[in-house]
Amino acid sequence: MADTFISMRNLKFMLYEMFDTEALIQYPFFADHSREVFDMVLETGMRLGREILFPVLSEMDKEQPEFTGTTVKVHPIVKKVMKACGDGGWIGAHAPYDMGGQQIPMSIMTAFRGIFAAANYSACVYPFLTTGAAHLIVSFGSPELIEAYVPKMFAGEWQGTMALTEPQAGSSLTDVTTTAYPDDDGPYRLRGQKIFISCADYDSIENVVNLMLARIEGAPPGIRGISLFVVPNKRLNDEGVLVSNDVACAGIYHKLGYRGAPITQLSLGENDDCLGWLVGEPHKGIRYMFQMMNEARIDVGMGAAAIASAAYYAALDYAKERPQGRRITSKDPTEPQIPIIEHADVKRMLLFQKAVIEGSLSLIFQCARYTDLINVLDGDERERYELLLEILTPVAKTYPSEMGIQAVSQGLQCLGGYGYCDEFPLEQYYRDVRIHPIHEGTTGIQGMDLLGRKVVMKNGRAFFIYLNELETVIAESKGIEDLASYGEKLDEARDLLQEVTQSLTTLALEGKIEIFLADATLYLEFFGIIAIAWQWLLQVIKVHWAREEGPSDEDEAFYKGKDAAFRYFFEYELPKIQGLAARLKNSGDGLTVSMKPECFD
Amino acid sequence: MADTFISMRNLKFMLYEMFDTEALIQYPFFADHSREVFDMVLETGMRLGREILFPVLSEMDKEQPEFTGTTVKVHPIVKKVMKACGDGGWIGAHAPYDMGGQQIPMSIMTAFRGIFAAANYSACVYPFLTTGAAHLIVSFGSPELIEAYVPKMFAGEWQGTMALTEPQAGSSLTDVTTTAYPDDDGPYRLRGQKIFISCADYDSIENVVNLMLARIEGAPPGIRGISLFVVPNKRLNDEGVLVSNDVACAGIYHKLGYRGAPITQLSLGENDDCLGWLVGEPHKGIRYMFQMMNEARIDVGMGAAAIASAAYYAALDYAKERPQGRRITSKDPTEPQIPIIEHADVKRMLLFQKAVIEGSLSLIFQCARYTDLINVLDGDERERYELLLEILTPVAKTYPSEMGIQAVSQGLQCLGGYGYCDEFPLEQYYRDVRIHPIHEGTTGIQGMDLLGRKVVMKNGRAFFIYLNELETVIAESKGIEDLASYGEKLDEARDLLQEVTQSLTTLALEGKIEIFLADATLYLEFFGIIAIAWQWLLQVIKVHWAREEGPSDEDEAFYKGKDAAFRYFFEYELPKIQGLAARLKNSGDGLTVSMKPECFD
Repeated sequence: MADTFISMRNLKFMLYEMFDTEALIQYPFFADHSREVFDMVLETGMRLGREILFPVLSEMDKEQPEFTGTTVKVHPIVKKVMKACGDGGWIGAHAPYDMGGQQIPMSIMTAFRGIFAAANYSACVYPFLTTGAAHLIVSFGSPELIEAYVPKMFAGEWQGTMALTEPQAGSSLTDVTTTAYPDDDGPYRLRGQKIFISCADYDSIENVVNLMLARIEGAPPGIRGISLFVVPNKRLNDEGVLVSNDVACAGIYHKLGYRGAPITQLSLGENDDCLGWLVGEPHKGIRYMFQMMNEARIDVGMGAAAIASAAYYAALDYAKERPQGRRITSKDPTEPQIPIIEHADVKRMLLFQKAVIEGSLSLIFQCARYTDLINVLDGDERERYELLLEILTPVAKTYPSEMGIQAVSQGLQCLGGYGYCDEFPLEQYYRDVRIHPIHEGTTGIQGMDLLGRKVVMKNGRAFFIYLNELETVIAESKGIEDLASYGEKLDEARDLLQEVTQSLTTLALEGKIEIFLADATLYLEFFGIIAIAWQWLLQVIKVHWAREEGPSDEDEAFYKGKDAAFRYFFEYELPKIQGLAARLKNSGDGLTVSMKPECFD
Repeated sequence: MADTFISMRNLKFMLYEMFDTEALIQYPFFADHSREVFDMVLETGMRLGREILFPVLSEMDKEQPEFTGTTVKVHPIVKKVMKACGDGGWIGAHAPYDMGGQQIPMSIMTAFRGIFAAANYSACVYPFLTTGAAHLIVSFGSPELIEAYVPKMFAGEWQGTMALTEPQAGSSLTDVTTTAYPDDDGPYRLRGQKIFISCADYDSIENVVNLMLARIEGAPPGIRGISLFVVPNKRLNDEGVLVSNDVACAGIYHKLGYRGAPITQLSLGENDDCLGWLVGEPHKGIRYMFQMMNEARIDVGMGAAAIASAAYYAALDYAKERPQGRRITSKDPTEPQIPIIEHADVKRMLLFQKAVIEGSLSLIFQCARYTDLINVLDGDERERYELLLEILTPVAKTYPSEMGIQAVSQGLQCLGGYGYCDEFPLEQYYRDVRIHPIHEGTTGIQGMDLLGRKVVMKNGRAFFIYLNELETVIAESKGIEDLASYGEKLDEARDLLQEVTQSLTTLALEGKIEIFLADATLYLEFFGIIAIAWQWLLQVIKVHWAREEGPSDEDEAFYKGKDAAFRYFFEYELPKIQGLAARLKNSGDGLTVSMKPECFD
């Protein structure tokens, strides 16, 4: 089995050649760091990935978590992963010093998490879900809450979770009914059910801290009556001893993939003794949760790109080793067979994977960079990056998730029949990666977020800033002879994006809201392809300048690979926007909206 | 759980309204039959599907075949399925009377197999793999071979298999090394290894008859030295008792899906006592095998469409039952939630599935009709249908296989998180359907077959006959007011097909063979979309005339569904040919061919 699951060379290209992460140290927040520190973080991530996570990839899949009736038995490695991440400070690494963090840039931690996700997606969820949950407390919790929970979470001693979904409220958070009953001025008492909660109960952790949405008794209906609570599985009693907080695990789900992490059902307050502590102000839970959700969405994009990366290297390894067939022009059956990587169709499948994965990673690191800049800038500049991050978040979640599935599928296909068998890891990656268009908001939800909210917000301000970003890159590419024709293509795509967007928003202005949003998923696909083309053009501009410097032979091969994947993207993927645009310009026909349910039978 | 896995109404639409299967009884070969007989076959298929196959769908997946060290333990239902199919005469149903068959049209048996495949794909493989293997003996075997094997196979007492693949020869059959040593004028002695052989050994069957490719000792190298043998797992000794034929099962594979059928490794002649009987003449094995393979390829297309159909009805059922969210225009959170089938994006996902599945089925039944006509016609007419079947076989295999995966994935997506869990059948369908682009020739192989062989053969004769078929349908649609604009669209697609094909074949004429075929997979995708558009236009022409007759309310709803899926296909799917054509016209750049293996790292 290949032991590469992600390319360090490419991560460094992203961090240092594309997005100049090193320059962040000019800002006081990051001033203590250096390139050496950043590299040490990456190397530690790679070492932990190689030594702890990757070796148990298949084992965690085959020995699934088991519900014992009261808790969940998980693979013993989980304890090690949490300890290693806690001891190393990786769970809270990007938090401020005064919160127990290390002020490491998000860009660097994005790479670190990507390494973990590529090594073993299920295993990486435990620590980094904890990061997200702790970050919510850090951002909105009282000093007492922070003190009580964050150090334990950053230390990897307590697991964090996000507890949103309920049986009757999946994507529709407005229908959350878990109720918090006020209890004098102490904590609230909670009663309700939560489902699909990752890692909310397992045997090898001392405590679990659920960041939970619930409705304070008597709160207004809908989104505006939802509050955020800290609801630990165990709470400290007056003697400082952890005792049950009446959070019962009612079972787990058996899943297609992503099997190393248990997805639990929780029952709260069966004995009327489940206490929850309000985070921030009442009724603002959705707004708070969305901070975590937006980070989580980019993490999902990274998870998908990372799994696709691991699948790519497994397929590449096989393609180099496996002899099969001869050149099409060779008719001599006594000639030796050639490795399948010599066949054009196999190269095409590999180039497709490379173009999707490295394009996705680029967009994800672009978002991480915006996050870092938002953290250190103020005023108009900060707002600009906030708007870019807002509009690109659904894209950075969805493009890698949807196309990651296709990439892994092509990786599996490279192995033929073996790809379908469990001797090779491809079939597991194929199952694992399918979760991403579902969790943290389905693709359909992301499409509506992009078109119905982000594109139109503030009179299209984020959208126009984004177009402006495209224009900058297009202009730069036009100054480089080899790239000018590609800049032209992106320019045409940009025009088409504007045209399609205008055609759709006209429907909204005419009050045809349902029809306006009916093809939002397709719009997101269309938008996503153009965003990745933008990132690929940006990559090869950097490659162009780097090659002018006379790179080493090894770097030259790396840059040539970039160039080929870039051209692949522009030749094979970008043209897909034509068909999508043709449909989107016709969305006004309301074809799906007018379909009657009874006609599906 | 939904108990519909395929629509009988739609199968009857295909058979009787689209392709007038009833009219086949005008030919002497089918003259004993009637619409009543055909309907009885379909109803029996549906009854067996409902009663025997469908109830164990999940059980056969979870309780996988187990290798015992000498044989393979399979689910007890397999015995029942083989017996029911043997007793009913379904294994040999389309064979001639004098071979023990019933001369049932292929069109009817295609529907029968489709029902079985939709009910439980793994279970349906046992009897219908036997059909294919027996058919090879019927077509090319000596009367003695036929007598010795076919009745037992048709009776469901002996299993048939296709044994092609070897460890060093997957897609490259030219590298088959299993050797047959002549032994005076008796049978040959075989030695070798076969892998990935479906159902080649299991405990609840008396015997297995492998139709096996092997090389007679001293045969010329390559494809031209490969012969076809009957190699049973057990042979009759002089006393008429079944004894071992030295065919050892060396193990089975654990697979992503399609788990109810064991895929075995065979070791032949370890004790130099494996006898094989030559089928037909020496060195013609590949030609013979391709007859079976071509049928098997259309069966694979049907298998994919059938699984996608079952997934569709499961998703539809859920979408009708599951309340979640409100109309986009409703802001009142106290209103009751609506079933998700009311959401435009869910309707879009369902329409996508319907358009893919019913379009695929239509193409498959078109091919079945050609097969029936080839069986009863002669001369030019027959040749015309043979050529159409030749050119459409890779398409009827691949479009349903590739798009079936997408359809099932959209079905899974309709269920959100539940789609990812094993309480619902979607996750199993998602795993099961992934086999189809791999077995019986990968998608890459089909692409090269279409472009490199079928399109160019006989100076493009099959291709031009196919274009002619499109023109006939286009012309008919142009005479129907509501359909004329769609006819126009197919006409443009037809032009584009011709243009792209010419641009590619020019590369071949220039001797750039590798570049010519480098994008063959994309060409197949492009060709496939147009073929399905052709079939959809054909469907709605029939619908148009049927609606003129004043159909019942139920039929009217069915026809409206057809109309919506048709329009969906033309609005959302057909435009995809634009992007594909843009690339295919540029194939001459040889982008993939020139990629160096070392640049993938």
